[in-house]
Amino acid sequence: MLRKVGAFDPVPRDDLLERINGLRRLMANAGIDFALLIQNVDCFYFAGTMQKGMLVVPLDQDPLIFVEKGTERALMETPLTVTPVKNDKEIKKILIDRDILKGMAGLELDVVPVSMFDRLKRVIGFDRYADVSELIREVRAIKSPFELVQIHKSGEMLAHVFAKARDVVREGKTELEIDAALVAEGRKVGHQGFLRMRGINQEMMTMTVQAGYTGAISTMLDGPITGVGVTPAIPQGSSFKKVERGIPVTIDYGGGYNGYITDETRSFVVGELQEVFRKPYETARLIIEDVMTYGKAGTDCTEIFSRSYKIAKKAGLEEYFLGHGDGKVAFIGHGLGLEINELPVLTARHSRALKEGMVFAFEPKFVLPPYGAIGIEVDFIVRENRLERVTKNSIDIVQL
Amino acid sequence: MLRKVGAFDPVPRDDLLERINGLRRLMANAGIDFALLIQNVDCFYFAGTMQKGMLVVPLDQDPLIFVEKGTERALMETPLTVTPVKNDKEIKKILIDRDILKGMAGLELDVVPVSMFDRLKRVIGFDRYADVSELIREVRAIKSPFELVQIHKSGEMLAHVFAKARDVVREGKTELEIDAALVAEGRKVGHQGFLRMRGINQEMMTMTVQAGYTGAISTMLDGPITGVGVTPAIPQGSSFKKVERGIPVTIDYGGGYNGYITDETRSFVVGELQEVFRKPYETARLIIEDVMTYGKAGTDCTEIFSRSYKIAKKAGLEEYFLGHGDGKVAFIGHGLGLEINELPVLTARHSRALKEGMVFAFEPKFVLPPYGAIGIEVDFIVRENRLERVTKNSIDIVQL
Repeated sequence: MLRKVGAFDPVPRDDLLERINGLRRLMANAGIDFALLIQNVDCFYFAGTMQKGMLVVPLDQDPLIFVEKGTERALMETPLTVTPVKNDKEIKKILIDRDILKGMAGLELDVVPVSMFDRLKRVIGFDRYADVSELIREVRAIKSPFELVQIHKSGEMLAHVFAKARDVVREGKTELEIDAALVAEGRKVGHQGFLRMRGINQEMMTMTVQAGYTGAISTMLDGPITGVGVTPAIPQGSSFKKVERGIPVTIDYGGGYNGYITDETRSFVVGELQEVFRKPYETARLIIEDVMTYGKAGTDCTEIFSRSYKIAKKAGLEEYFLGHGDGKVAFIGHGLGLEINELPVLTARHSRALKEGMVFAFEPKFVLPPYGAIGIEVDFIVRENRLERVTKNSIDIVQL
Repeated sequence: MLRKVGAFDPVPRDDLLERINGLRRLMANAGIDFALLIQNVDCFYFAGTMQKGMLVVPLDQDPLIFVEKGTERALMETPLTVTPVKNDKEIKKILIDRDILKGMAGLELDVVPVSMFDRLKRVIGFDRYADVSELIREVRAIKSPFELVQIHKSGEMLAHVFAKARDVVREGKTELEIDAALVAEGRKVGHQGFLRMRGINQEMMTMTVQAGYTGAISTMLDGPITGVGVTPAIPQGSSFKKVERGIPVTIDYGGGYNGYITDETRSFVVGELQEVFRKPYETARLIIEDVMTYGKAGTDCTEIFSRSYKIAKKAGLEEYFLGHGDGKVAFIGHGLGLEINELPVLTARHSRALKEGMVFAFEPKFVLPPYGAIGIEVDFIVRENRLERVTKNSIDIVQL
């Protein structure tokens, strides 16, 4: 019944077991004996359900999916065994009975708040503990074939929305009108409703449209083009700024299918693109074409960053590359999956070789105050010998 | 320039100073000497800006608004003094120079993750600490006249969207089609883009539409009618379920203006409402009419809960009231403001007198598996001698 309305598209059992085993291998290396997972996305990744409760992954026993609320749904969502419980005390009792509460506990210290941690420590009663988040992020960085299917479907949704944008972007329309129409288009075909970004204060819009100087004002969000929004209470996203002839409109949109996020940006222009934006746009395109000539499993993320930077510098545009002033960001790409800030991060600072099955958004963008911003963002799957685009849609600027 | 596109509607200086003084009074009572605030919403509430950084509120000195990114915007957004910094070490130096780092530190332990807390403790270097979150929640529970203006504007946006729903709800349409069209309607007129809910794993849709049995399936979200969504990765919200004749469609929507959330629910039906839903709907209406006869500053939240419960029980509907089975929630109302789970919480368990200036959503709802759900939700402002509706729109079921 739930499948009919789209709400039930479960993660295969083998995928879940492979993910759990991947985590266990890293836990064993790190000396962690059992993981207590709380965050909804991590629980979903390893258990296939995020109904309210806790996921416990011991090194040498079956995982325990404890559910306090939404039990009926959890039973439908996961092929693994669910253990309904009323509260944390019951969880403690079961963990003691199974002799799990010994040695080093692993918790998601990057997201679990202090007061919740203190309560868990008191009620569940573990002694030594370590951060298991980086291990989880490592496992999640490599996508399985099932996950890549979800990402492709998310990309199809995104391509559909960008195709519709040709009919929606018009001179005189506000960023918000364009945003509203296109987000609705995605939602109608089953967009999951929102995108997730890991960590406190990390908030994402599904779409952000910038039609001029609003693309050139920096704000707190860690992205090169973030928009000014409609209030200092949410200082990002689309605004009442209207589309003007010759000034590019950047549309940054995230598909969302069965949890999996895609994240691309296209530029649109009514009439002839103003001179100041032409070289930046061509340079963004060059950077994308370049990475596709050499990127593959084994390529170091810092190499991609520095080669891209050199192309921007050669064009004399390094001051505007990836933001301007205190709005400049340190990365040109970021991993995609159930969250929009997964591994890998493509910066100059962190050496990391791409691995087969990684998925990342790549976003050469230029911010040109006070005029506006322009850029392209595409999503890549890392293959053994190449980078594969998630969508097949054109990266050309769309002239209207 | 930013005001023109809607992005700049600042909080008045006097409001900010009054809020900070309110917090200081509670800090003094609790023995907290200085607060280090990190969460974006708390920072916005006390500083008028949430650009990236930290807000430090000492008991006996001016607050320090440290900004690392988005400085230019922070300077426009807040009438208070901004201190641009590069990193936390600089913050530490300034705090030491001003002799602020002594005594008891207050932090938002309900939202600050363990690893961030550990880093702050190490880098900033405070010794004793306490949770300041409950104090912040108490201050935020009472809305100023400026805040009530924002809430009224948020309510106008909400009323506009519900008025449009009459044209959108039709037999055969999917929940998602209705959701997409109405969310777009709100966004076009300047909806801020998303709603906030405090705490880990607390995620909110701007709208959720239920057109039958999808309203009767419980999930992890702490609400009586949550929807099934389109994926186990986001198990809430609208789905591909279609509107059927005689079966009520509940639409739960949150307005969002300048940070302030309103949250109401209306029921719609194509044709004659099926018998099973009639008494529940009339009972929901009775409960709202009843609370308006006695609710005012001084009324205890537990009294409101128990009186409402008695009306449901008298109608023989207590089994279905506020959810069914493990989906039953413990509250009939919740505070509204910058977050959707503010104080007061209206439950049977926590005695608390309503105070003038509090704002809360009141949601008598019935969940009737396997048929569906029906209910009403309205927002109230607590006045000295009454409860005032935020919007003036009708609570009648809309027959189409």
